[in-house]
Amino acid sequence: MAHDQFLAAALAEAHLGAEEGGIPIGSVLVIDGEIIGRGHNRREQRFSSILHAEMDCLENAGRLSPDEYRRSILYSTLSPCDMCSGAALLYKIPKIVVGENVNFHGPEEYLRSRGVELEIVNDAECIALMKDFVDHYPELWNEDIGELAKK
Amino acid sequence: MAHDQFLAAALAEAHLGAEEGGIPIGSVLVIDGEIIGRGHNRREQRFSSILHAEMDCLENAGRLSPDEYRRSILYSTLSPCDMCSGAALLYKIPKIVVGENVNFHGPEEYLRSRGVELEIVNDAECIALMKDFVDHYPELWNEDIGELAKK
Repeated sequence: MAHDQFLAAALAEAHLGAEEGGIPIGSVLVIDGEIIGRGHNRREQRFSSILHAEMDCLENAGRLSPDEYRRSILYSTLSPCDMCSGAALLYKIPKIVVGENVNFHGPEEYLRSRGVELEIVNDAECIALMKDFVDHYPELWNEDIGELAKK
Repeated sequence: MAHDQFLAAALAEAHLGAEEGGIPIGSVLVIDGEIIGRGHNRREQRFSSILHAEMDCLENAGRLSPDEYRRSILYSTLSPCDMCSGAALLYKIPKIVVGENVNFHGPEEYLRSRGVELEIVNDAECIALMKDFVDHYPELWNEDIGELAKK
């Protein structure tokens, strides 16, 4: 309820994705207190295997300079997967704010070992939105995170 | 000269990228002895921060099942960066054939620690193509790998 304004913006992206029939995960990139990129998972919408929320956000932010990335904070409604964590490492993004890591837990320890600061919020709305999706669309969710569907 | 046919296909993608004025890195994804996706770095061509060769290849391969990724081999003319290595981890791609790791060295030890088999070819043509690019376009190259430009 009392979301940080940037996490609220990421959550708005997640809701936008849900409205489009997609996987409800959203992300924003913030530099010097300003949102310079927004994105949400577009697996369904673009038939994409790489447009996770964070990737879509980084793509929409455009080509930034190494110096800009080093001043940035990446927000995501869900703990970033290996791919999105890797993108943050590539560009040396120093901090990631994670809406929740209850429904999915990415390589957080590895990120920390590489010097990335993680702030885990475990926001109730982020958790509820994702849980509802995973419960209703387990096959799409498993495809998105590369997991063999549970039997 | 005596390239593996799949590394040759990745190299052909790298040359295609160079002809387009882009960063000359190419990639193919192979399943059951067949190329099912090809790609090359499109930072310049698409003004993209995420379309490294391997990402472009995975995107062009389409949405595959977890089972298909688990039978796949990813070829790249250059050692995959953190982002592309993370994408391989996300989809549990079991093997990556690396054209060369002389001009750039990604998180190979981490990939191995996560169970990925790496075959480092250090092919002379891959090395020469990349070296020529890095020598001529250091700023574009540094932007692509998130490095602050050398002074």
